[in-house]
Amino acid sequence: MAQPITEAALDQLFRSARTPNDWQPEPVEESTVRALYDLLKWGPTSANGSPARFVWVHSAEAKARLASLAMEANRPKILAAPLTVIVGYDLDFPDTMPKLFPARGEMMRQMFKQPGVAEVTAMRNGSLQGGYLILAARALGLDCGPMSGFDNAGVDKAFFAGTRIQSNFICCLGHGKPESIFPRNPRLTFEEAGRFA
Amino acid sequence: MAQPITEAALDQLFRSARTPNDWQPEPVEESTVRALYDLLKWGPTSANGSPARFVWVHSAEAKARLASLAMEANRPKILAAPLTVIVGYDLDFPDTMPKLFPARGEMMRQMFKQPGVAEVTAMRNGSLQGGYLILAARALGLDCGPMSGFDNAGVDKAFFAGTRIQSNFICCLGHGKPESIFPRNPRLTFEEAGRFA
Repeated sequence: MAQPITEAALDQLFRSARTPNDWQPEPVEESTVRALYDLLKWGPTSANGSPARFVWVHSAEAKARLASLAMEANRPKILAAPLTVIVGYDLDFPDTMPKLFPARGEMMRQMFKQPGVAEVTAMRNGSLQGGYLILAARALGLDCGPMSGFDNAGVDKAFFAGTRIQSNFICCLGHGKPESIFPRNPRLTFEEAGRFA
Repeated sequence: MAQPITEAALDQLFRSARTPNDWQPEPVEESTVRALYDLLKWGPTSANGSPARFVWVHSAEAKARLASLAMEANRPKILAAPLTVIVGYDLDFPDTMPKLFPARGEMMRQMFKQPGVAEVTAMRNGSLQGGYLILAARALGLDCGPMSGFDNAGVDKAFFAGTRIQSNFICCLGHGKPESIFPRNPRLTFEEAGRFA
């Protein structure tokens, strides 16, 4: 039976982790991005459908393009961070089911192709994978700056043209400047957020 | 600058973690559920809106009710697991903004109240919080069995009556029977799931 991971690791993942608003310039190496994907990819999704898709924006040109499509308050963050990932989800993910669920691929493909099913499944599971990404990045020692203040249609056109991939949220990755972190806001109590039944 | 957590912890969270299909009967203590919430609550959400809501189903009566609203293949899992959490999101979450974002609460409340904004924000961030829940549970040594095969409207009526909380997915928690785990399915390669830009 598994034991809890260390208190220090729980701090790093959850309790001490914070969202920076400005970033140190050191790059995030390609090997780190690949290590990050190789962790997050294992997180569970419905029938292993894995609908999330990622554009790892690190070139000056792509950063400028993404920044131009973001809310004004988010632009300097994208320009300062060494890397910002666009987390999208692919509405055509059902077509990957024969590969991702070999035992029942065609059946799963048909199920997810029913009207409306691909959309909600992609959004739910693509967002779950976004949560895995954030915690995997923190597990590797990176800071995360997730944001949803941007022009989704514009980002889809600029980065996902010719596909049925839709942008969900974006997330700066790197090492934040500690002085750019705001005071922490309160959370809901256990009872405010739920109950036993 | 933070260092990666240990390889053993990365295994426990991502690489070795699997979804069981049958469960050992030992209960999940209330103190463990509260510790789980006290980790997942720290995960980042848009403007700290924290829209996820949780019903921690552990009584025999509530398990039977939830199982009766699930796809047939999921019923025995819910009945066998010591606890299954219903992860929902509250469409009225904007009203919590003055508490959750004191500096700009009323402004954020108005922003999230714009037509259509609460719905997509609650689904995206409530699902992110579902990802935090799954990884926090694994971090505490629990196994997770997430499922979306159930009657959402029926679950909303049975467990969220009189609110604007909508069920998103459900997740068995406890210690799985190792022999109930299926062979692992493949994942998309880095290149299949994304690209640098």
